[in-house]
Amino acid sequence: MVINMKRLEKELTKFYEKAEIPQHLAASIVYSLTAGGKRIRPLLFLKMLKAFGIPLETPHYRVAAAVEMIHTGSLIHDDLPAMDNDDYRRGQLTNHKKFDEATAILAGDALFLDPYYILAKSSFSAPIVVALVKELSYASGSLGMVAGQVLDMDGERKVLSPVQVKDIHHLKTGRMLAFPFVAAGIIAEQPKEVIAKLREIGQNLGLAFQIRDDIIDVTGTFEEIGKTPGKDQAEEKSTYVALLGLQGAQETLKQLLKTVKDDLAQVASSAEIIEIIESLEIK
Amino acid sequence: MVINMKRLEKELTKFYEKAEIPQHLAASIVYSLTAGGKRIRPLLFLKMLKAFGIPLETPHYRVAAAVEMIHTGSLIHDDLPAMDNDDYRRGQLTNHKKFDEATAILAGDALFLDPYYILAKSSFSAPIVVALVKELSYASGSLGMVAGQVLDMDGERKVLSPVQVKDIHHLKTGRMLAFPFVAAGIIAEQPKEVIAKLREIGQNLGLAFQIRDDIIDVTGTFEEIGKTPGKDQAEEKSTYVALLGLQGAQETLKQLLKTVKDDLAQVASSAEIIEIIESLEIK
Repeated sequence: MVINMKRLEKELTKFYEKAEIPQHLAASIVYSLTAGGKRIRPLLFLKMLKAFGIPLETPHYRVAAAVEMIHTGSLIHDDLPAMDNDDYRRGQLTNHKKFDEATAILAGDALFLDPYYILAKSSFSAPIVVALVKELSYASGSLGMVAGQVLDMDGERKVLSPVQVKDIHHLKTGRMLAFPFVAAGIIAEQPKEVIAKLREIGQNLGLAFQIRDDIIDVTGTFEEIGKTPGKDQAEEKSTYVALLGLQGAQETLKQLLKTVKDDLAQVASSAEIIEIIESLEIK
Repeated sequence: MVINMKRLEKELTKFYEKAEIPQHLAASIVYSLTAGGKRIRPLLFLKMLKAFGIPLETPHYRVAAAVEMIHTGSLIHDDLPAMDNDDYRRGQLTNHKKFDEATAILAGDALFLDPYYILAKSSFSAPIVVALVKELSYASGSLGMVAGQVLDMDGERKVLSPVQVKDIHHLKTGRMLAFPFVAAGIIAEQPKEVIAKLREIGQNLGLAFQIRDDIIDVTGTFEEIGKTPGKDQAEEKSTYVALLGLQGAQETLKQLLKTVKDDLAQVASSAEIIEIIESLEIK
């Protein structure tokens, strides 16, 4: 059983092929949905389902699309002039630069609202759909991603403690990375304890991604990271590198990835997910 | 059985009293949620439930809150500099003027994402929750409100036909006003035909609201409408008044309200909803 990337890409943009959706809106949404994202959240979800022995069908690809849509909406809004004011993402013009600010705001809004329609229309049993809706909203809204973005913004140019920085990233990145693991557990009808462990794995992996980003912001080039390097440092952000030094951040990342691997071994065996975890290691 | 407005107000802001939500975010959201909205959508929903003989309990007030939250999020984003660039709404500073643009963007985002958590946590049966999630997302996203806003923006300074203007308002205002009727029908487990009729009633009522707004934009004062009058005209928007003249718009509104009343009589008897419909009449 192989993950069908073409199918994932198809499900991601399929919703916006509907004739009823204004062309201008659909074009700007599809632009960002196909702007070279690595599909980490969808892939973790699908690989975790595989690890639980679930044959991958269309409804699974749709849940994978739903989480990627919300993630993409958040990137569009993050890049806005009033937020991070970025002109490029992954080496391409950001949505508001390619289109305009009003369109980018509305494209993001649509990407926050539409995934719930996709989930509600899916063929899972109603209790599973309700659980997925609850988890996706929890991961993305005021209890998750959006809260993390607010705290991140509030924390700019302030000196934060390592605990405060960890809390921010648990919300900003962790919750949305926990969703793929938790959602797979829900669909595979795993017991509560397994779902709790899956949540922890996702949260810690989210933190690992963030620490890795912080390290790469210092050590990477424009080509490698697709945006201007050193931006966090220039903005005096409380990154892990600023807090722990480059070596300290690298050590923390290493420890965290080990914890994630050990935890994963307790709930399921997946060489593919271990491969993703190991790809985050910095040599 | 009386609708408890205090209870509605409590449910609207209750979600944001959670200690985990950053204070700054909660403050800006609560500011807009309590900025003098008339609660039309929640009231229509609760009154329609009453008309179907459903005793109003906490879960009903939460669905009422959910639709008002999304409506409020859309107002916050509508007012942004990149969109309508309004400094005042209902006589108070708009969210981005009271706080800042980044906060306003994130407050709106939260108000789009959080209601699904509230719906998913409600005590209705899972199939009813799934139906409500589907309808709320349909009403608000790329198939509804957001699509209407995009078309409205695209249509500025263009000459549109009455049919085009009607299509825009069906999406922009109609879908979100249909939700309270359709949702009440779902909870009251009404047959498909009744739900289809309820949808039509809401859609037409939405159109009536829009035509009334267009009329009042021309005839009202700052005190009456809580914002600068004549703004649509100054921006050469294709309003109903611009298309049909003031008298033509007034006549269309009158006809539409009659249709809504006649349709309502076919599905349920509600003096309270008739009162709301009649309050839209312009003498």
